[in-house]
Amino acid sequence: MAGATVKPTPLLKDELDIVIPTIRNLDFLEMWRPFFEQYHLIIVQDGDPSKIIKVPEGFDYELYNRNDINRILGPKASCISFKDSACRCFGYMVSKKKYIYTIDDDCFVAKDPSGKDINALEQHIKNLLCPSTPHFFNTLYDPYREGADFVRGYPFSLREGVPTAVSHGLWLNIPDYDAPTQLVKPRERNTRYVDAVLTIPKGTIFPMCGMNLAFNRDLIGPAMYFGLMGDGQPIGRYDDMWAGWCTKVICDHLGLGVKTGLPYIWHSKASNPFVNLKKEYKGIFWQEEIIPFFQSVNLSKECTTVQHCYIELAKQVKDKLSQVDPYFTKLADAMVTWIEAWDELNPSGDDSAKPANGTAK
Amino acid sequence: MAGATVKPTPLLKDELDIVIPTIRNLDFLEMWRPFFEQYHLIIVQDGDPSKIIKVPEGFDYELYNRNDINRILGPKASCISFKDSACRCFGYMVSKKKYIYTIDDDCFVAKDPSGKDINALEQHIKNLLCPSTPHFFNTLYDPYREGADFVRGYPFSLREGVPTAVSHGLWLNIPDYDAPTQLVKPRERNTRYVDAVLTIPKGTIFPMCGMNLAFNRDLIGPAMYFGLMGDGQPIGRYDDMWAGWCTKVICDHLGLGVKTGLPYIWHSKASNPFVNLKKEYKGIFWQEEIIPFFQSVNLSKECTTVQHCYIELAKQVKDKLSQVDPYFTKLADAMVTWIEAWDELNPSGDDSAKPANGTAK
Repeated sequence: MAGATVKPTPLLKDELDIVIPTIRNLDFLEMWRPFFEQYHLIIVQDGDPSKIIKVPEGFDYELYNRNDINRILGPKASCISFKDSACRCFGYMVSKKKYIYTIDDDCFVAKDPSGKDINALEQHIKNLLCPSTPHFFNTLYDPYREGADFVRGYPFSLREGVPTAVSHGLWLNIPDYDAPTQLVKPRERNTRYVDAVLTIPKGTIFPMCGMNLAFNRDLIGPAMYFGLMGDGQPIGRYDDMWAGWCTKVICDHLGLGVKTGLPYIWHSKASNPFVNLKKEYKGIFWQEEIIPFFQSVNLSKECTTVQHCYIELAKQVKDKLSQVDPYFTKLADAMVTWIEAWDELNPSGDDSAKPANGTAK
Repeated sequence: MAGATVKPTPLLKDELDIVIPTIRNLDFLEMWRPFFEQYHLIIVQDGDPSKIIKVPEGFDYELYNRNDINRILGPKASCISFKDSACRCFGYMVSKKKYIYTIDDDCFVAKDPSGKDINALEQHIKNLLCPSTPHFFNTLYDPYREGADFVRGYPFSLREGVPTAVSHGLWLNIPDYDAPTQLVKPRERNTRYVDAVLTIPKGTIFPMCGMNLAFNRDLIGPAMYFGLMGDGQPIGRYDDMWAGWCTKVICDHLGLGVKTGLPYIWHSKASNPFVNLKKEYKGIFWQEEIIPFFQSVNLSKECTTVQHCYIELAKQVKDKLSQVDPYFTKLADAMVTWIEAWDELNPSGDDSAKPANGTAK
């Protein structure tokens, strides 16, 4: 809390899983060893299940390939994307921990302006453990950070904040651009270290990137569905966007917070813009209609759990976005399947009736 | 524009006035000489008009004391506060320039992390001359800045942005805290240089500080009324907050942008927290009702100019806030007087009928 003595950040060693989607050997973990080795990893292997993924020694992990997903979910496995990093959300579902951190396998440890290695996970934990302030804007950024506070004019009744559900981290080096921007600015690199964390205000949706993302699974997990992308689908590279739009409107409805800013990771290589354009191009049209839809979504008061909110949202997606493309009918059905599968794998504590701010599990 | 070659910032020498409210000699200008000397200053002298305010040699200025304000506005001078820095808004009214920069006389030149003096005015001009993005959030902050752009998932139809009406700068050293926070944290200093400019999303109001503030007078001038504070009024230190709340809802209604972040100034000394508490204490209660009021204000479609919006807002203030305290009836009347006085002093170009995005004058 603002004004309180700053305590060392807990490690949440037994309360956090790291979820990594991949198609290759996880050499990138070597660089993360000092920061990740004490955590449990959930590796979601995409593509050919017969391929062997090598994980550096000393890491504690479980690995799921497509055969595992099909075996565990049965017919409901249809909601998990194939040949797309959207498959990572299967890892959120099988985790039993309170917090998730997910990172791409081309992301490395970045350095802060003083040249020190950034412990991204530690910053995410800080973000998730201190409140958010979605109901009023603080011009000095996160008021709970050491050396900061609420500025003059900030209503006192709002200074307690709300629980933080999502911590969205950023990227140095290769920025997260769409294909057209990659094509136009092939050499642009992000070199600006912005030393800030801020709450995205209530009512504002945002482009959530899945590259460097943490969340409170108990608070928002069932909304973190990465949609139907990749193999057999008309679209890719909108998996995290979809999850971000859904998550933000549900967080707003349930009074939960979403933070963005620190920590940075070092994003090592740009994906192929031509391949990306092929995956993205329908999304570029569709997002012009999807975003106004999410900006005006209204969830009824009866939706008091994430699951209820998500099912209600799936209905509205089917009603209002199916006219954009028949794909959205399929996606809306997959959203329902996702929740059914989630509840099947997470039956204890009666998730479907658990209040959103519950800490059970 | 994003992607375009970066051009040197125009100086706007003949298009910008610097407005300074003061009760003392303006020695602080010495430090600003390299940055301010080429601009015209409008000094609004507060308190005893017989006192002589010394201005360092070489500055081009006009100075107004209370006698001048009374002479120029006649009975309408009642809308200009006395013994409070809220009097600065008289300077906005008498200016004939397109842009205004206002700064407090205890604010000095700050240094960036490399040790270089920050030309605050140049950054404000950059902020005002490039568009804002209030309709969707960009996680890499201002997309128009060199080295940045819109991230993946940002709708292309919104990348043109909207005209920027306000640039809200921040403060190193003494942060802009309210009296209770000053009392609790007397030694807190702001040492964090956050290298970012961001648009405050549509629908989100914010605590606007008048210490280091620039705006496009043609776009939003008539909304920059600093209210009734100080001598004879039950409240102080809410002048800039009032202007900020009104300005933001009108910008949202008219499709204009508000930016916050860079530039920093060096705020040299904290005001007395005991004196501040006396000025603020009613505001601390009132803001709990004022902020929900502004969060739910709705201006009718017929309000297409700043003046029309402001008169409509005055009506709603009278209707809805007078029950909080009779002060708001008086304030609502003063809001109307302010617009009458503004139109009297700014008759050319038919301000009252000028569209909000007009560049006439």
